[in-house]
Amino acid sequence: MVSPWKTASVPGLQLGLGCGFWICRSYRFLFRAGAMGPHVVPRQLVWLSRWQAVCAWGASVQHRTWAGVSRIPSLLSSGGALSSSPLVCRSSSSTPPGAPEVVLTQQRYPVTRLPFSVVSSEDLAAFERILPGGVVTDPEVLEASNVDWLRTVRGCSKVLLRPRTSQEVARILRYCHEKNLAVNPQGGNTGMVGGSVPVFDEIILSTTLMNRVISFNSVSGTLVCQAGCVLEELSRYVEERGFVMPLDLGAKGSCHIGGNVATNAGGLRFLRYGSLHGTVLGLEVLADGTVLDCLTSLRKDNTGYDLKQLFIGSEGTLGVITAVSIQCPPKPRAVNVAFLGCPGFAEVLQTFSSGKELLGEILSAYEFMDAECMWLVTHHLRLASPVQESPFYVLVETSGSRAGHDSEKLSDFLEQALSSGLVTDGTVATDQTRLKALWALRERISEALSRDGYVYKYDLSLPTERLYDLVSDLRARLGSQAKHVVGYGHLGDGNLHLNVTSEAFSPSLLADLEPYVYEWTARQRGSVSAEHGLGFKKRGVLSYSKPPEALRLMQQLKALLDPKGILNPYKTLPAQA
Amino acid sequence: MVSPWKTASVPGLQLGLGCGFWICRSYRFLFRAGAMGPHVVPRQLVWLSRWQAVCAWGASVQHRTWAGVSRIPSLLSSGGALSSSPLVCRSSSSTPPGAPEVVLTQQRYPVTRLPFSVVSSEDLAAFERILPGGVVTDPEVLEASNVDWLRTVRGCSKVLLRPRTSQEVARILRYCHEKNLAVNPQGGNTGMVGGSVPVFDEIILSTTLMNRVISFNSVSGTLVCQAGCVLEELSRYVEERGFVMPLDLGAKGSCHIGGNVATNAGGLRFLRYGSLHGTVLGLEVLADGTVLDCLTSLRKDNTGYDLKQLFIGSEGTLGVITAVSIQCPPKPRAVNVAFLGCPGFAEVLQTFSSGKELLGEILSAYEFMDAECMWLVTHHLRLASPVQESPFYVLVETSGSRAGHDSEKLSDFLEQALSSGLVTDGTVATDQTRLKALWALRERISEALSRDGYVYKYDLSLPTERLYDLVSDLRARLGSQAKHVVGYGHLGDGNLHLNVTSEAFSPSLLADLEPYVYEWTARQRGSVSAEHGLGFKKRGVLSYSKPPEALRLMQQLKALLDPKGILNPYKTLPAQA
Repeated sequence: MVSPWKTASVPGLQLGLGCGFWICRSYRFLFRAGAMGPHVVPRQLVWLSRWQAVCAWGASVQHRTWAGVSRIPSLLSSGGALSSSPLVCRSSSSTPPGAPEVVLTQQRYPVTRLPFSVVSSEDLAAFERILPGGVVTDPEVLEASNVDWLRTVRGCSKVLLRPRTSQEVARILRYCHEKNLAVNPQGGNTGMVGGSVPVFDEIILSTTLMNRVISFNSVSGTLVCQAGCVLEELSRYVEERGFVMPLDLGAKGSCHIGGNVATNAGGLRFLRYGSLHGTVLGLEVLADGTVLDCLTSLRKDNTGYDLKQLFIGSEGTLGVITAVSIQCPPKPRAVNVAFLGCPGFAEVLQTFSSGKELLGEILSAYEFMDAECMWLVTHHLRLASPVQESPFYVLVETSGSRAGHDSEKLSDFLEQALSSGLVTDGTVATDQTRLKALWALRERISEALSRDGYVYKYDLSLPTERLYDLVSDLRARLGSQAKHVVGYGHLGDGNLHLNVTSEAFSPSLLADLEPYVYEWTARQRGSVSAEHGLGFKKRGVLSYSKPPEALRLMQQLKALLDPKGILNPYKTLPAQA
Repeated sequence: MVSPWKTASVPGLQLGLGCGFWICRSYRFLFRAGAMGPHVVPRQLVWLSRWQAVCAWGASVQHRTWAGVSRIPSLLSSGGALSSSPLVCRSSSSTPPGAPEVVLTQQRYPVTRLPFSVVSSEDLAAFERILPGGVVTDPEVLEASNVDWLRTVRGCSKVLLRPRTSQEVARILRYCHEKNLAVNPQGGNTGMVGGSVPVFDEIILSTTLMNRVISFNSVSGTLVCQAGCVLEELSRYVEERGFVMPLDLGAKGSCHIGGNVATNAGGLRFLRYGSLHGTVLGLEVLADGTVLDCLTSLRKDNTGYDLKQLFIGSEGTLGVITAVSIQCPPKPRAVNVAFLGCPGFAEVLQTFSSGKELLGEILSAYEFMDAECMWLVTHHLRLASPVQESPFYVLVETSGSRAGHDSEKLSDFLEQALSSGLVTDGTVATDQTRLKALWALRERISEALSRDGYVYKYDLSLPTERLYDLVSDLRARLGSQAKHVVGYGHLGDGNLHLNVTSEAFSPSLLADLEPYVYEWTARQRGSVSAEHGLGFKKRGVLSYSKPPEALRLMQQLKALLDPKGILNPYKTLPAQA
């Protein structure tokens, strides 16, 4: 059989990442033959393994850390969506130069402050005794912790606490519980739903200085660390020891592992390594000052109820995660990424089935994006598409222990996908630089969207076969009201990121979107928050995915674990009637 | 490099499984060369893939279903350990012919009946209205549900209910909650810790007739089924559709999926597919008659607290699981099993490290057993050891999508293990019959132990590097008091099954074992119940693995979800002071 794939070297191709991080000087493509030239048959994709040998995998990826990047003032000041949002105005002095100030959440949203105490000078003195030098009241410093990275919500906390130990956290919480002071736990502040910043004047309890690795077992791959360790730094740490973290996020450069666990972060390795409910082995959690030591490093432990599960995904509303024990899988020796063009969504799904069959245990990611997403990243970020224009694109990643075997499997998969017409064009990368370039096309969509105008963001779980119908439906429903209606996401996990942009915030457009999107999702028994959580902004929509009995039990659990409701108030659960 | 492996056909070898299920007529060995002959070099283990082609994988394995087998009266009557246990006496009429009766739990253990109501004729009439024809009061039928399969604990329930739907379960629980009647949920009754049978006269609520598959998505592999589906039948169902269940147990022929989830069963695929906390997608649970519909089929859902996690591993004490949604991985196309002899435990650990490195993503099980285990299965069950006598044996299973690749990886692993002296002898199987024969050596240890005398059973999680020290310690400590002190288990998961046998139950031997074993485990921060749970028999030892704060929270959760304490009383949590 003749393969329609060929390899071609394209020296000096500039991928133009828009922020000047790097230029790819030698990029190798696999083109589909046809108008572009004759067929070449690299049956075993032998060059894959040649490249593999000289390329380390998994080092830090600066341009993937959008959360970190987005908080660089010069990027924020470049205009676009942020300045056109009704959530921003220009009055404060504490924002970065040129960046418009974010409207206070309490002014923007219909939310009422609960009767918590207000921090007094006596309280500050008490905190100073617990944390000498760790109490921050400087408004300039506080500003970054009061505003979310998307710059959509803003609290007015007057104090930021930076403990270094679990014992300090315990003492702080015991004090706050006694004094009825509300507390907003904060990790890297990279959340998407306003869960990590105060709504009013809650005390911000930051894990920034709790960034110590406690232990690592190089036989079992069990990592135990404090909650404030940055994901990317942990990745580097375990990769030097032959393992990888079981999760990877665009925000890895800023997000804290404690925050990842508190929000049950999904991300890019979910397809391969599964949920944190499976990979987190232990937690050390504090509710009203009590240290609940569940920091086991055991893979199996059936002694009573698995309490740590309660806190995974509870967004800091049931306890504060101060340390994490997590199972790290062995580091794959070979990683390949294929970026493919598909003629329709049906072909995207069929290519996924074919990938599962032919790539088997080495399939580690299956992401998709539509043509409008590609337009956004090429237009706003000046990235270059490595494949011919297509209605849909998929990114397929393999991770395995043996390069030769992996390239054979990948070659067979690509050959079948192309010969059967599921895929019309594609390119494959195996070395770090090229892998990053392909991943950037998928990962920087969020950044491109924010440059397109005001963004209405939805993070949904849907049955894969219906996943794109909602995007098409909405495009027809909204017509010219919207600039773009785009769909992309972790198709392998049934997770759609649906985004709609408009020049500026429009109440009538919002009224056409909500509750329509939530009702559509509920009819499919989908989830109105697949991986982003509910935080402050989505807490009102929980009932689209959960029955009243479940909500009632959640409220009972909240009352049990945090009877005064001081932990991250106004988050996760809907406001009580 | 010359490989010290060779292949040899041994026609007519009888593995002698003791219960006459099958005889292996043509068994292929890999011997280590030396005294036995010259070196042969099957570098690619080509015969592996040849065998693969003709053998289906994963069909029902009758002799692995020890739970089912053990309940066949003719086997039970064969004497051995069971008749020598002080838990058995000969007085009742409702036991299988020849089998001694098990002493009532309330007579054997210091436990006091809680003030629940006693089932009245009025109650029976009410149940009959809810479940026409589904109310069993015949003592002969009840006997099997009152006694655990190990025949160590026995309740005296007078009524067994067999609902078919969640709604029926809801009505039963609502009634029992109102009338203060205690309920013992029961699946396949294959538990190891007396969690699945009544302690006194609790109503037995059986899931036996709730055995319907509700849906299966052949793209995503999501299975939704009622709680009473037998694991082996589900395995067969999904395997016919190209998937496998993410868990596999020796008890698969009898155990119910609802019971698996309620006890957070571990088993043989844990190393590959992880915990049920990661693979169970949804549950439909009932507490005091309320249907809590968490039966989602979504891989990702971050809308509020993940309530289903509470019920996974709670042993029916917080709610009754009536349906399960579970993620099934694709069925591997190739399965290989290597059975190897190791000269010491250090080599068992090093072989595991080597296997993780060279087998990578296809490593699906790594089990070990010591020489005394081999003696027990060869002596009591007349199985034949396929390798030369060694201090330790390991069973390595690979599961992958491509036979040729897998056999290459396995060949390299075996070559390295043998050439470096980690392994001194070994054999490999790829077809169903031979796979089963090798697995039987490991899986039937429990059965062999029960024929050796009275058995003291411990199921521990320990750091792998210290895992066998406890066995050696105990052997020295117990001396001639014990017939055998053996260690085996899921080494890949850090899970030791420690078993001690004696001619008959001995209080002094027990005093030398407990709390010594639990204290030893606690010092290593291990778990005193890795996968078997606590049930009735181990509920008193929870505090060796969990701090008082955790126990207190568990008790609060129990009080919240089951305020009258009617659900599986006397189980999981220690008796209140």
